[in-house]
Amino acid sequence: MKIAMAQLNYHIGNFELNTKKIIGCIRRSKTEGADLVVFSELSATGYYPHDLLERKEFIEQSYEALRTISKECVGIAAIVGAPSINPEPRGKKLFNSAFFMFDGEIRHVVSKSLLPTYDIFDEYRHFEPNRKFSVFDYLGKKLAITICEDLWDEQETQNEFGREKLYQLSPLKELSALNPDLVINLSASPFSYNQENWRKNILVKNAQKYQIPILYVNQVGAQTELVFDGGSFFLNKNGDIQHELNYFEEDFRIIDTEISTHNLQPKTETIEKIYQALVIGIRDYFGKMGFRKALLGLSGGIDSALVLVLAVEALGKDNVRVLLMPSQYSSDHSINDAVQLANNLGVRYEIIPIQAMVDSFEISLSEVFGNRDSDITEENIQARTRGILLMAISNKFGNILLNTTNKSECAVGYGTLYGDMNGGLSVLGDVYKTDIFKMARWMNRDHEIIPINTILKPPSAELRPDQKDSDSLPDYDLLDQILFNYIELNLSPEEIIARGFDEATVLQTIKMVNTNEYKRFQAPPILRVSSKAFGFGRRMPLVARYS
Amino acid sequence: MKIAMAQLNYHIGNFELNTKKIIGCIRRSKTEGADLVVFSELSATGYYPHDLLERKEFIEQSYEALRTISKECVGIAAIVGAPSINPEPRGKKLFNSAFFMFDGEIRHVVSKSLLPTYDIFDEYRHFEPNRKFSVFDYLGKKLAITICEDLWDEQETQNEFGREKLYQLSPLKELSALNPDLVINLSASPFSYNQENWRKNILVKNAQKYQIPILYVNQVGAQTELVFDGGSFFLNKNGDIQHELNYFEEDFRIIDTEISTHNLQPKTETIEKIYQALVIGIRDYFGKMGFRKALLGLSGGIDSALVLVLAVEALGKDNVRVLLMPSQYSSDHSINDAVQLANNLGVRYEIIPIQAMVDSFEISLSEVFGNRDSDITEENIQARTRGILLMAISNKFGNILLNTTNKSECAVGYGTLYGDMNGGLSVLGDVYKTDIFKMARWMNRDHEIIPINTILKPPSAELRPDQKDSDSLPDYDLLDQILFNYIELNLSPEEIIARGFDEATVLQTIKMVNTNEYKRFQAPPILRVSSKAFGFGRRMPLVARYS
Repeated sequence: MKIAMAQLNYHIGNFELNTKKIIGCIRRSKTEGADLVVFSELSATGYYPHDLLERKEFIEQSYEALRTISKECVGIAAIVGAPSINPEPRGKKLFNSAFFMFDGEIRHVVSKSLLPTYDIFDEYRHFEPNRKFSVFDYLGKKLAITICEDLWDEQETQNEFGREKLYQLSPLKELSALNPDLVINLSASPFSYNQENWRKNILVKNAQKYQIPILYVNQVGAQTELVFDGGSFFLNKNGDIQHELNYFEEDFRIIDTEISTHNLQPKTETIEKIYQALVIGIRDYFGKMGFRKALLGLSGGIDSALVLVLAVEALGKDNVRVLLMPSQYSSDHSINDAVQLANNLGVRYEIIPIQAMVDSFEISLSEVFGNRDSDITEENIQARTRGILLMAISNKFGNILLNTTNKSECAVGYGTLYGDMNGGLSVLGDVYKTDIFKMARWMNRDHEIIPINTILKPPSAELRPDQKDSDSLPDYDLLDQILFNYIELNLSPEEIIARGFDEATVLQTIKMVNTNEYKRFQAPPILRVSSKAFGFGRRMPLVARYS
Repeated sequence: MKIAMAQLNYHIGNFELNTKKIIGCIRRSKTEGADLVVFSELSATGYYPHDLLERKEFIEQSYEALRTISKECVGIAAIVGAPSINPEPRGKKLFNSAFFMFDGEIRHVVSKSLLPTYDIFDEYRHFEPNRKFSVFDYLGKKLAITICEDLWDEQETQNEFGREKLYQLSPLKELSALNPDLVINLSASPFSYNQENWRKNILVKNAQKYQIPILYVNQVGAQTELVFDGGSFFLNKNGDIQHELNYFEEDFRIIDTEISTHNLQPKTETIEKIYQALVIGIRDYFGKMGFRKALLGLSGGIDSALVLVLAVEALGKDNVRVLLMPSQYSSDHSINDAVQLANNLGVRYEIIPIQAMVDSFEISLSEVFGNRDSDITEENIQARTRGILLMAISNKFGNILLNTTNKSECAVGYGTLYGDMNGGLSVLGDVYKTDIFKMARWMNRDHEIIPINTILKPPSAELRPDQKDSDSLPDYDLLDQILFNYIELNLSPEEIIARGFDEATVLQTIKMVNTNEYKRFQAPPILRVSSKAFGFGRRMPLVARYS
């Protein structure tokens, strides 16, 4: 059978755009001789619509889109993902479904059984799990349709407190008893750099175990925090990858399930994948929100340098402007490094020193403050003055502020709420400082874009004389390892200490993470590139006593 | 049987405190001759621990607490709520369970079947549903234990797109076949002013339908956004309320299930209940976070006036300070009204005019801004200058900033991010402006606390000359009705228009709600008093096209 794999970038709730893209691919597939074209999970609506699924007009629009799309399926079949209304009187109102369309109408509706409800996934919030399994004939072949998690009933877990079998049912076991010739999987599986091969491995294992070929079509593109990386593939029944589509961009390929081949993507370094994920994350945030221009504060430090490089790649240098806001504590080299970087990239910059405004606050507050010593308050006033200046330019010129906080800082609360934590989107909030350094060197691999001094100098917030991050934090090499064990691996303090880390440092670090939940609560959305990012996928109570 | 109903205020993760409270009640119950003492859902951990449930050390501490508590159960039985580890190899790691303790040990573990996963509830994220039902004998009676939602399988819904039967199972139907003498329900059911009688009605209906008495013990107190109102009760098999415990405070009562009585709470006005919910919300946020002192900006307007009255009630006047930050656009009466209110309440106030700082920003930005007209940018600079001043005092003196935004503003985005949207806790973010007026009059019912001018004058942000809210928003009476239909009732635009509202106003209002999701994403936690508050219970995609 000739099957078109349509790996597209959808926009949530944009039925006009999604329908147009889907119909375009159906027509192309037909022209190019495919028998069937497969789209990804919830392709009609975009994944994931969250509580828009609870709105009547949203579901009506989705059904209207399906009717329009089905009329195109003449002489070709298509499988489109969308919610379907549960016809039974009990259970959630909706199923997460795949619609098989042929002869101008919807012929089969198959629904998802395993509803991921953990980390960033909320599917049981909106959907009833399917409990009935069936296959159907098309062109003499028996097809089994599954949706994403349906093939993940036996998950490998990252720590011993997790578990392998999250669900009561094994859809593939049920379906395999019906002897399908092919399993099709509509997916919306986001990228995470530390689970790169997880997805492929689990599907290979499934193909081998049940000796059935699997065709897997993933969504691509970013939806606020989540970056879907594409990389759709086709496995034969031995679990050999026959076809693999592009990562981080739309792709389309017609494959012949009967012809053996080995058409894979070239290998990419992890740091480059993170880079690509962040670029598409910025680009789609702007594109889908209807924004064009970005703004950021350039300090001369490495975090803002990276964000600028990423923003220029995502939006073009003419759509990015930067503001330098030196204080009395900014070193000359910081300003020089920032100017150098802006010039290297050809980006417009302006300089507004903050001292006058900071002085104005300190004078106005002097009576209330009396003769109290200078402390974190005054450092925060500097950061917040910068925050006001950036937002003023954002408001006046319509440039969206990009946040430059990294994951290490975000974890330990090393940042000022309403100051440097401002922004419409956090670009690096899921990238540890040690990876920031790696990415900077990778960006400079051909020639020096980021001034080498920016990379080499000791990290500093420059909020008081000769301040260094290392004055108040463990070295980033150590800090990031402890954080990874605590956040990504979810290990207990005892387990982390047992891995050989210094007890006092572990406890101090964990305490910083726990006592800063309140700051992260008000942080911008963070582009997710790891298996556990701050934000929607990590839900911690604010009012709690942490041990 | 003599049963003690223990309606307590737990602190999430504070096993020491929760265990102490639980043991205290067990001892008292025994001393006072009770046969059994019943605590609320997840009482050992506090409801709701969110992703702390995924942490090994948290579950271990919970089991340790249960062991300690069970040793106290000699000569008396107790039912305590806590997570239990799922012994089966498939499904989520945990159950949401009730532990029946007697003779110094845990005798029965009964788990929750219906796991609410909608609005503010995320239970299927962490728990496997129970599918086995049993009753057990205690002192010659057959007891059936259920947990909260287990008795809610037939919910009334607020709109036609919702549904009555969310679940496949009906626990009470299963249990009633086992002929229990009493159904005990451990609950953690939060307050919402527009579902006041929902809970009671559904349990009365259940008692009557199955002709079984129901003993219902609810949690009380606030956990960040959620305010649990208590109001535990005992129904006989005819659904008559025999006992009803206090609302919004801890309570303890030993009842005799064999003696008919009618011991209810006095009726309270809705606006007073909202007031009580907000007071306990503030008090518990501070108490459980380990804070003592609050701060807010007092504008002379009605919103900040209410927050001040509430904060003084919650924390005491000596723990609250206010800052007046007049600008050139502030009217004299605003300052006078604010001073008058602070004096009426005996609260410390300071005045810092903002003009010097605003000027300093405008001078520093003048070159970048060129000769562009004044617009929303300059209004935001004022709001953000106030934000910096408040945060500076917060940082210097350790007072936590209370946010004063109301629900109507929050809905339509009438507020400045990093300005008046700042704060550790939003007190009024779930209270519509029309209810703000009602509450102000209720606060003044005996004598004028809030200056009458604050209540009577037209609402204004005072960010430009003679500005009124009504310049850019529909009248609050109208606006709030449209918002309620859209947010609480989740009606489609067409349905709202069909209820007789002006089409253009409806569409304009809904557009404002939808285009401000990005602002609310970064808002502080909001005390929830309605059936649909902004925040955790309303999850909307940012990157989406809204129709």
